[in-house]
Amino acid sequence: MKNFKEEIARVRGFVFDVDGVFTDGGIVVTPDGDFMRKYNAKDGYAVQYAIRCGYKVAIITAGRGRCLDVRFEMLGVTHLFTNCHNKAEALKEFLADTQLDPAEVIFMGDDIPDMEAMQMTGLPVCPADAVPDIIEISCYVSQYKGGEGCVRDVVEQVLRARGDWMQKANGLAFIPSR
Amino acid sequence: MKNFKEEIARVRGFVFDVDGVFTDGGIVVTPDGDFMRKYNAKDGYAVQYAIRCGYKVAIITAGRGRCLDVRFEMLGVTHLFTNCHNKAEALKEFLADTQLDPAEVIFMGDDIPDMEAMQMTGLPVCPADAVPDIIEISCYVSQYKGGEGCVRDVVEQVLRARGDWMQKANGLAFIPSR
Amino acid sequence: MKNFKEEIARVRGFVFDVDGVFTDGGIVVTPDGDFMRKYNAKDGYAVQYAIRCGYKVAIITAGRGRCLDVRFEMLGVTHLFTNCHNKAEALKEFLADTQLDPAEVIFMGDDIPDMEAMQMTGLPVCPADAVPDIIEISCYVSQYKGGEGCVRDVVEQVLRARGDWMQKANGLAFIPSR
Amino acid sequence: MKNFKEEIARVRGFVFDVDGVFTDGGIVVTPDGDFMRKYNAKDGYAVQYAIRCGYKVAIITAGRGRCLDVRFEMLGVTHLFTNCHNKAEALKEFLADTQLDPAEVIFMGDDIPDMEAMQMTGLPVCPADAVPDIIEISCYVSQYKGGEGCVRDVVEQVLRARGDWMQKANGLAFIPSR
Repeated sequence: MKNFKEEIARVRGFVFDVDGVFTDGGIVVTPDGDFMRKYNAKDGYAVQYAIRCGYKVAIITAGRGRCLDVRFEMLGVTHLFTNCHNKAEALKEFLADTQLDPAEVIFMGDDIPDMEAMQMTGLPVCPADAVPDIIEISCYVSQYKGGEGCVRDVVEQVLRARGDWMQKANGLAFIPSR
Repeated sequence: MKNFKEEIARVRGFVFDVDGVFTDGGIVVTPDGDFMRKYNAKDGYAVQYAIRCGYKVAIITAGRGRCLDVRFEMLGVTHLFTNCHNKAEALKEFLADTQLDPAEVIFMGDDIPDMEAMQMTGLPVCPADAVPDIIEISCYVSQYKGGEGCVRDVVEQVLRARGDWMQKANGLAFIPSR
Repeated sequence: MKNFKEEIARVRGFVFDVDGVFTDGGIVVTPDGDFMRKYNAKDGYAVQYAIRCGYKVAIITAGRGRCLDVRFEMLGVTHLFTNCHNKAEALKEFLADTQLDPAEVIFMGDDIPDMEAMQMTGLPVCPADAVPDIIEISCYVSQYKGGEGCVRDVVEQVLRARGDWMQKANGLAFIPSR
Repeated sequence: MKNFKEEIARVRGFVFDVDGVFTDGGIVVTPDGDFMRKYNAKDGYAVQYAIRCGYKVAIITAGRGRCLDVRFEMLGVTHLFTNCHNKAEALKEFLADTQLDPAEVIFMGDDIPDMEAMQMTGLPVCPADAVPDIIEISCYVSQYKGGEGCVRDVVEQVLRARGDWMQKANGLAFIPSR
């Protein structure tokens, strides 16, 4: 396992899966056939703050639906891959578009469909409750579960390591809901 | 109690109750009189993967409603018994239709209405938070509670025991929401 | 504190508050100004089973709305006091209507507005996470929190003490959602 | 750290953030692009009771939407600052309008956007699961997490210290849902 604390100082991009990472894996199916998820405000604050600081953020998920689009557009995410069944390809597109080196990218996933793409980045990481196969290939396992702040955890650590955390907090209000 | 680890190598079919198994038992009643449940993405991945591998899966529940249908059709479940008040009869229909021997079937339930049908299969199993009467008749009690991965737990164990787990993972994306 | 195990053998009626008893206290306000709560399937099974066995059940809550009505009508509750701001009066009406003696009634509440009415019954009980003032006046504190099975706990204990539990289970399917 | 138990005897006003304080931080995005939060009935009881006792209560949040308005108007909150990106300014407006001294005001927040305004009041406090930066500047950390009763905790402590708790309980029903 690499020295996570050292490695993160070079991170300039983040990739996140959604279910089990931004959420506890819970999917609520509504009577009219739509889907709702519960996001965490602390995660949301960190993601939008990182984007404002200039970090590149991609969401790569097999999920889809208007609620996904709304949430991540609200946070300022520009690379949103939903209904995605080839995560490795999506990652390549993100890297090509941002000109980031894979070593500069953290990928947080929690289940088998994330595995291949996670291993293509320099820093595969996961929530505390990721499946065993994912924990095994991760260079860092957050103490927080999916939906309980694991995204905030890695974003905050990277930004602190690079001196960006709370440098631009003045005037940046918590914008959890739009 | 049978040797669960040995018995599961012969499993070719799964039967699941819904409330308290795929969920934490929580039922949200909407203002217009409908019902919503929160499912777990890790459970969903395992069920659709097992179906793709050729396992037979039945859902037998007294619950009903469009949200139930949507969720399990999405996962590829073909034997969906909702609004079911005689679970033993539904099980017999599933066995007859699939030509499975009861000894080849796992039934995961969590409460008294599941008891009779569970005992008709070779491997009655339950979540960690099943009621005492169900725990007593189960040959395996998952360490996971309902809605927190108990379905994934038994599916993954069976498929690992039979050499099917992650053999067909390439190209099978996580499809939690359609 | 009375000997709860002995006292419950005489119980023929149940009164329940809703928020914090049938639920974890959580109230979801929808965008159109309505309210949703998450109920527990195991609680629901016990309540409808008790009613089928002939027990009298009242719901006395300051809450209101269609989702409350739907849930408790589904379970067969005939004494439903919603939007109720004088719980003692509602209790008296329930007692008069059912001809039950207060000593034959369990009242499960969790917060100060329940206190007066709880003390008018023979068996004031509460969930594990009731407020301190309520725990102090309760003759039994369930090990389960609100929404996690505290209703099931007391109903099942009473019915077991009286020999009613699982005597009529055959043919009584779990009807959690209608 | 000040002596919280002594300081609270002078409190006449409360300011609360919403996400992570009244809730566990969870935000549910609905398919039509709206937002839902889960509130706690015990918190709600305390807030409306405090207002009825004459305490001044302000909500200062970057969140917005009809569900926020509905919830807090229901509780009787008159100073509701939503979609607020300058919490210090909102606090000043609340202080000017109520003629309260900052030393008489408790501010409960959980994340960085609350920090500046919290420090302008006499008693910055936070939930058990506030972020480290907020815990560091708080004079009291509730044992309860956001959404699990942290609001009730501080309101009840203040009202008990001042002799107001349960003095006007008769006739004040629990009004969690309207």
